[in-house]
Amino acid sequence: MTETNNENKDLQKLLQRVVYLLSKYRLVEGFVTLQEDSNQDLTTSPVQKNNLQELQQLLDELHPADIADILEALPLEDRRLIWRLVKAEHDGDVLLEASDAVRETLITDMGSRELVAATEQLDADEIADLAPDLPREVIDDVFRTLPMDEREQLRSAMSYPEDVVGALMDFDVITIREDVRLEVVLRYLRRLDELPDHTDQLFVIDRDEQLKGVLLVSKLLVSDPNFTVAQVMTKEIVTLHPDDHAQQGATAFERYDLVSSSVVDADGKLLGRVTVNAVLDFIRDKAENEALNLAGLSEEEDLFAPVLKSVKNRWVWLAVNLVTAFIASRVIGLFEDSIAQLVALAALMPIIAGIGGNSGNQTITMIVRALALGQIGPDSARKLIFKEIGVSAVNGLVWGTVVGLFTFAIYENAALGLVMTSAMILNLLLAALLGVLIPLTLRKCGRDPAIGSSVLITAVTDSGGFFIFLGLATIFLL
Amino acid sequence: MTETNNENKDLQKLLQRVVYLLSKYRLVEGFVTLQEDSNQDLTTSPVQKNNLQELQQLLDELHPADIADILEALPLEDRRLIWRLVKAEHDGDVLLEASDAVRETLITDMGSRELVAATEQLDADEIADLAPDLPREVIDDVFRTLPMDEREQLRSAMSYPEDVVGALMDFDVITIREDVRLEVVLRYLRRLDELPDHTDQLFVIDRDEQLKGVLLVSKLLVSDPNFTVAQVMTKEIVTLHPDDHAQQGATAFERYDLVSSSVVDADGKLLGRVTVNAVLDFIRDKAENEALNLAGLSEEEDLFAPVLKSVKNRWVWLAVNLVTAFIASRVIGLFEDSIAQLVALAALMPIIAGIGGNSGNQTITMIVRALALGQIGPDSARKLIFKEIGVSAVNGLVWGTVVGLFTFAIYENAALGLVMTSAMILNLLLAALLGVLIPLTLRKCGRDPAIGSSVLITAVTDSGGFFIFLGLATIFLL
Repeated sequence: MTETNNENKDLQKLLQRVVYLLSKYRLVEGFVTLQEDSNQDLTTSPVQKNNLQELQQLLDELHPADIADILEALPLEDRRLIWRLVKAEHDGDVLLEASDAVRETLITDMGSRELVAATEQLDADEIADLAPDLPREVIDDVFRTLPMDEREQLRSAMSYPEDVVGALMDFDVITIREDVRLEVVLRYLRRLDELPDHTDQLFVIDRDEQLKGVLLVSKLLVSDPNFTVAQVMTKEIVTLHPDDHAQQGATAFERYDLVSSSVVDADGKLLGRVTVNAVLDFIRDKAENEALNLAGLSEEEDLFAPVLKSVKNRWVWLAVNLVTAFIASRVIGLFEDSIAQLVALAALMPIIAGIGGNSGNQTITMIVRALALGQIGPDSARKLIFKEIGVSAVNGLVWGTVVGLFTFAIYENAALGLVMTSAMILNLLLAALLGVLIPLTLRKCGRDPAIGSSVLITAVTDSGGFFIFLGLATIFLL
Repeated sequence: MTETNNENKDLQKLLQRVVYLLSKYRLVEGFVTLQEDSNQDLTTSPVQKNNLQELQQLLDELHPADIADILEALPLEDRRLIWRLVKAEHDGDVLLEASDAVRETLITDMGSRELVAATEQLDADEIADLAPDLPREVIDDVFRTLPMDEREQLRSAMSYPEDVVGALMDFDVITIREDVRLEVVLRYLRRLDELPDHTDQLFVIDRDEQLKGVLLVSKLLVSDPNFTVAQVMTKEIVTLHPDDHAQQGATAFERYDLVSSSVVDADGKLLGRVTVNAVLDFIRDKAENEALNLAGLSEEEDLFAPVLKSVKNRWVWLAVNLVTAFIASRVIGLFEDSIAQLVALAALMPIIAGIGGNSGNQTITMIVRALALGQIGPDSARKLIFKEIGVSAVNGLVWGTVVGLFTFAIYENAALGLVMTSAMILNLLLAALLGVLIPLTLRKCGRDPAIGSSVLITAVTDSGGFFIFLGLATIFLL
């Protein structure tokens, strides 16, 4: 029994092995290039040939998902070399498993003919996943090579935007009629070479392809073969629509512990199914994108992307933050006279702004999560504001006192300490109020509260914090 | 066919209905309480009885996952009332589905007897999931009520820490011998009332409970019943160990598109299995925890937690940030003389620090993600530093020029503008260098680079940014 126990440690070992073989290859390559300059073939010297063969062998044994991971971990030049060694029949699967950014670099290295060949091993729904990255003429060629029914499926799969159930759907459904006996179903299945992955249910449809219910495989196995499908089929089932948000589909899988789910159109006609592996991929991608967006990366970035590509991926966030920083800077500018009279203000003001930002972001994170889970009911907003204001009041008193004492210890100025304490309390209250209101307002305007809330609250607590602190200082100290 | 199409919108509707019924109930309650003061029973007036019945009916029809969500969305008092209306036989499942924070509030409301009863519907692995939140005496009682074999399972399940494969494992395995014919297997299955959820494979073991392979259900269905198990079983399978990190298990499910996986001990003896629904829950919890940690919430927080509980959940992060803010404040303090001479410095310095922090966090996010995916090989560190420095150099030139021009436009001081530009470039380079080094160093010290990297980089770019900018200004402008 092989243990395909796949952990990062194992991947690290694989990666080390690949890098080692590559370095040996390159060493000889350098040597050979020094001697003769006319070689363009990959396999020039016998030693190199040897290393490449070993690499190829290693790659042939790997699962496409593992190959994709190794490719992602390699700098561009090495990646290209390894990619050329991957068996053509794996090309399609590796492209599917690779992240968007890395897939792009792989496709750039392939000719049209190669690309068309790579899609030949794939199902229509998988080709549709690759389609946005493929050149127009390749897609046209693919269409031409497909049989009629798959062409229809591909057209349908390509018609859905990325974030709806239709984009997660595949067409590997086994359909049966409700009036046959289970014995007949069993015999029918035995005539197939294999069942589609993740077949935990057969779909019961009528003459008009209307979905009437499902026959669970687990039910089929424990039931008397003399029963008819109608007698043992499940009628209360989860059905998805192709235009449902993909997130809704994923939630259904999480809640009801599904392995697969039918997808039907508005008239109840069976279109295809969604399987849990598509849902897992969707959830992982989504979590990753959220983490990236939070840090201001527009999309996942190839670790070894060229510098200018990375700059492009990151500039929007920096530009937005620069604008908010300019605004905060002008707020401070209003109080330059005060600062000139009491320079300590300059050293103290970042404390007020910083802690306000942290506290505001804690509130935002809570609220955005609750909104995503649909937990904020009609009457909750007011309750939540009161709660967050309460939390901020306590935090303001505690941390305000701490910074007040810190200030007094350093500047021996009791009035300045009191201004610090008051400013801290006020800025935390501002953070709490807007930490609730910003995401709720974004949601009301039909925007995704996960995007932008954090930048907005930080802008408010920065500029607001400077204004409150310097304003109080100007009134009470000067 | 019922459509259990479960989206947030539907949950919102349900929630509105529950809140509406509750408010009607409360209205009458208030009225009744005014009239007579001796009522303690829930169902006092006929009208109230009616509302409660309608509520109860609504709840009886819901999936436990949906009930858990409704409970999470309700303020404490309403939550308690609804919780008392949930059928006792659903109690266990609802507790399982609720988030940790909310589960605590539900358990507080239950007596020992009720809690023991709630566990009766659950499997050993599910009871183990609840165990950390149950009072000691309840667990002892549960142990006493369990049959011998389940007691052993519960003991074993409770022995694993939260983040290993053992904690995701269940014991619902169907085992068969390799020398029997498929026909016998089919007959054996037919004698069962039902198959465990997610049974996509039967586990083939020998006399010593050693796992020899698996019989895929999809294979069983398409094969000639006269074959023996040995002839059609799969030997190359993914096996997990109970002490593997749960994340490794989850990765295996994602890569190899598994529905279930065997768990074996070091000697190859079958212990249980992990199913994809446990993996889905793990992935969701993990993604959520990471998002919460990033914002400095120690754990998921009940939306309606009491103020002091929320304060406790959030104070560590605020305290850490306060310390870094104090340090930054002292760095500025070093240059108070310079600021007194040129007050514009006070207004400009937050721009340098802020953009440095943003850029550093972009780098950190990239590196932490790559580390989590095991993509950073032996030679990559140097390459990554060069790349990030390149990105920062470009960003520094671009944004440095922008802030330089901004400064010149406002203060009409070319030298000050040049100092801004230089400080921006230097702080971005610092952010790039440490954005790579901080997570790599944390990893080398055996710590999770996802925790703390962000605070550290912000501390560096704040204090570093102030020091660079004010230092340059002191040298060149004064």
